[in-house]
Amino acid sequence: MAKVLTSRKEDYAQWYNDLVIKADLAENSVVRGSMVIKPYGYAIWEKMQAQLDKMFKATGHSNAYFPLLIPKSFFSKEAAHVEGFAKECAVVTHYRLKNDPDNNGVMVDPDAKLEEELIVRPTSETIIWNTYKNWIQSYRDLPLLINQWANVVRWEMRTRLFLRTTEFLWQEGHTAHATKEEAIEETGKILDLYAEFAEEYMAMPVIKGTKTEAERFAGALETYSIEAMMQDGKALQSGTSHFLGQNFAKAFDVKFLDKTGKLDLVWATSWGVSTRLMGALVMAHSDDNGLVLPPKLAPIQVVIVPIYRGSEQLDELDITANRIKTDLENKGISVKYDNRDTHKPGWKFAEYELKGVPVRLAIGPRDIQNGTIEIARRDTMEKTTLPQDGIVEHIEALLEEIQLNIYKKAYDFRSDNIHEVDTWEEFREIIGKKGGFVLAHWDGTNETELKIKNETKATIRCIPLNAKKEEGKCIYTGKPSSRRVLFAKAY
Amino acid sequence: MAKVLTSRKEDYAQWYNDLVIKADLAENSVVRGSMVIKPYGYAIWEKMQAQLDKMFKATGHSNAYFPLLIPKSFFSKEAAHVEGFAKECAVVTHYRLKNDPDNNGVMVDPDAKLEEELIVRPTSETIIWNTYKNWIQSYRDLPLLINQWANVVRWEMRTRLFLRTTEFLWQEGHTAHATKEEAIEETGKILDLYAEFAEEYMAMPVIKGTKTEAERFAGALETYSIEAMMQDGKALQSGTSHFLGQNFAKAFDVKFLDKTGKLDLVWATSWGVSTRLMGALVMAHSDDNGLVLPPKLAPIQVVIVPIYRGSEQLDELDITANRIKTDLENKGISVKYDNRDTHKPGWKFAEYELKGVPVRLAIGPRDIQNGTIEIARRDTMEKTTLPQDGIVEHIEALLEEIQLNIYKKAYDFRSDNIHEVDTWEEFREIIGKKGGFVLAHWDGTNETELKIKNETKATIRCIPLNAKKEEGKCIYTGKPSSRRVLFAKAY
Repeated sequence: MAKVLTSRKEDYAQWYNDLVIKADLAENSVVRGSMVIKPYGYAIWEKMQAQLDKMFKATGHSNAYFPLLIPKSFFSKEAAHVEGFAKECAVVTHYRLKNDPDNNGVMVDPDAKLEEELIVRPTSETIIWNTYKNWIQSYRDLPLLINQWANVVRWEMRTRLFLRTTEFLWQEGHTAHATKEEAIEETGKILDLYAEFAEEYMAMPVIKGTKTEAERFAGALETYSIEAMMQDGKALQSGTSHFLGQNFAKAFDVKFLDKTGKLDLVWATSWGVSTRLMGALVMAHSDDNGLVLPPKLAPIQVVIVPIYRGSEQLDELDITANRIKTDLENKGISVKYDNRDTHKPGWKFAEYELKGVPVRLAIGPRDIQNGTIEIARRDTMEKTTLPQDGIVEHIEALLEEIQLNIYKKAYDFRSDNIHEVDTWEEFREIIGKKGGFVLAHWDGTNETELKIKNETKATIRCIPLNAKKEEGKCIYTGKPSSRRVLFAKAY
Repeated sequence: MAKVLTSRKEDYAQWYNDLVIKADLAENSVVRGSMVIKPYGYAIWEKMQAQLDKMFKATGHSNAYFPLLIPKSFFSKEAAHVEGFAKECAVVTHYRLKNDPDNNGVMVDPDAKLEEELIVRPTSETIIWNTYKNWIQSYRDLPLLINQWANVVRWEMRTRLFLRTTEFLWQEGHTAHATKEEAIEETGKILDLYAEFAEEYMAMPVIKGTKTEAERFAGALETYSIEAMMQDGKALQSGTSHFLGQNFAKAFDVKFLDKTGKLDLVWATSWGVSTRLMGALVMAHSDDNGLVLPPKLAPIQVVIVPIYRGSEQLDELDITANRIKTDLENKGISVKYDNRDTHKPGWKFAEYELKGVPVRLAIGPRDIQNGTIEIARRDTMEKTTLPQDGIVEHIEALLEEIQLNIYKKAYDFRSDNIHEVDTWEEFREIIGKKGGFVLAHWDGTNETELKIKNETKATIRCIPLNAKKEEGKCIYTGKPSSRRVLFAKAY
């Protein structure tokens, strides 16, 4: 077999790019920084969406849809927000094209200039809070728990498939509450939901924490995030949940009458995950042979490949394979039976390895005689031959085992690559050479954080929620610190 | 009760607008021509999406995602297409804002002008066919059956909630085929799928047909549509399926090697339905009391309202109501038990009538004694009291009956308002006064079609597929015609 992918060891970034393209997940589009999400990649995203959507609804949230285009002036209403987003927006200035008199093409019609420019949403806090103003009058209208599935555009200079693209797909939750406590509780509830999704569905362990001031969302009082470790030891922020205080209520004048008849500003949260999770999924588990998908998110969980010579043998195999397929499907397992005669079994084996199908069954004439079937699991590449009797139950259990094993492998990898560090020398050594996560003391200032970043490229990923109280000294300045924070280079 | 809606008789257009807003389906956004789809409206759209998506997948289609922003030059590659769409596009010319030195706001950064402007997609044929060029080399890559759920923007001058908005949500299918026959077959298959969805889920009878040249999609060789009658007798085009021939393959140079090794242009189709269907659903069935939703698309199929005095009575009712709720939910029926003490039963009755909940149950202390429950259906407003025993089976059957009854009512209304007309005088009379659909002979020319439109505002909605051969004379010119076409005023 020709080698399809650059190995991770050789060039991790190139391996990732090769894999996303070769496994048919996505490709770069002709429009700078935008991607095309291909059917196989989109099928994984749909599984993520379906599960997240179910979890949002189970916690009382409803979906709605707000406009793509936002008046420019909205962006200057919340001071911190404009600083964070104004630098990277697609701006609509005209609403018509016309035939170009000088050639065969089209040109922008100068007569169709908008009075006020419109911004393609980079995030929707402004338009949503401008709408909430009319929806919220009294405490009876609260809480308002709304989510939106949408596309957003941020004009990124350096883009990478799924990880950072000009346009991406995401969900953005925007909730409104009567009290500060309730809004903070919501922020935490969503953080837990994201962590549960990452760990139980993506099989990706995450660390929950709060962001430092420097890394906070533009307009938030507190940003919570989940951080995952990729196989190169770098961190990938996989979801954020923001406590916005009363900032947006103030900016858009959203007040409500509380139970005592007093007028007060509404408390807000916002939270989101995006197609970036696709990048995380790929980088957390896959190997030099291709994708390794957790069964819960695999579009095809089991593939069956017949090994045969001639159509007579195939006809016979079809009967058994289709029976097994139906039995598996009746248990809610998604199965593909690939009996195409245009490709050889070896080609199919490599293809489904590349695509990360968790379980592969192969069946040939001898298996028919013996009542057996060959079963291979993608995560460990182990092969065994088993009786056809009881194969469905075996596969059901195996899919669960694979899901857990993928999680365990990622968890063990992370454990091996988290280091408690107490000296600046060791910090530089580990961040510079071994990589991984570093738990170290920090003096709590923006200034120190920035200096560490400039010298090592490592940033504070989060202040872990479960960090224990521990007296120590900042690795950089030696000033006192009461708990360790999480440093890493990050995507 | 205060009257909430303008009646249909009084002002049909106002009734529609009132209803969409009062039933919490959608509202106008601050951005000209854009709407906010509110949670209740979006829940109906999600039910439509889920069903359509299932039908697309069952017929072999996969979802994918293509960029929102399309290079301007792409629009001039297909001559007819540019004429149809260039007039109404949102144009992105810049990619950055900056602080305005003259005030506290932000301004477009003149240094961030794009070399080539980008168009917010009004439809995606161009970007998709530019992508397909790289995906299709041989007949083995065909057919390519892809659908996209997306938002699109068309700069409409006169907008109405759901029916015509600057931004709307839709699905657009884009398929590629090796032969003309196969592409035409696909176009027809999708038309049938749309008709099945409209009739079986929306309970809305439709007429399938082909569009005249004047009404064809920009770039298509043939456009098929389904046309539904609204309660004011006007037609609403509810879905279109286009046979694009080789026009887009030609424009974007998409060729494939056929089985004989010959290079040929690929054949194309595209097809879509949009949030416009929400408008159709409202206008087809609802009445002066509010929405009438077919059970298959109702977010809440059954609402239970307790009638009580004091919390002791309520506690008792809660037990029975929750038991019935659980029993119904176990049958896959969506139920809301509204035991809020902030609103009176009368208010709740009116509210769920407005929201179109198909079945309302009311239960009071006497019902507990007698083992009964009051059941009201939204479509006929009939109320009966029934034993609680067997109520689940009764409701299951009733929901099916309501679904069929709503369809039948719309079907009968349409039958009463379709007229075969043979004289110009009668045509003008009916179109001008009674309204409804008119089946009449037409000489087949654009010119006559346009004159009829100018004089009566009626257009040819379609040439029905099931039209029988029948010799006749054009109602306008008296020239010979071989079958009747469908005229109506349209949304």
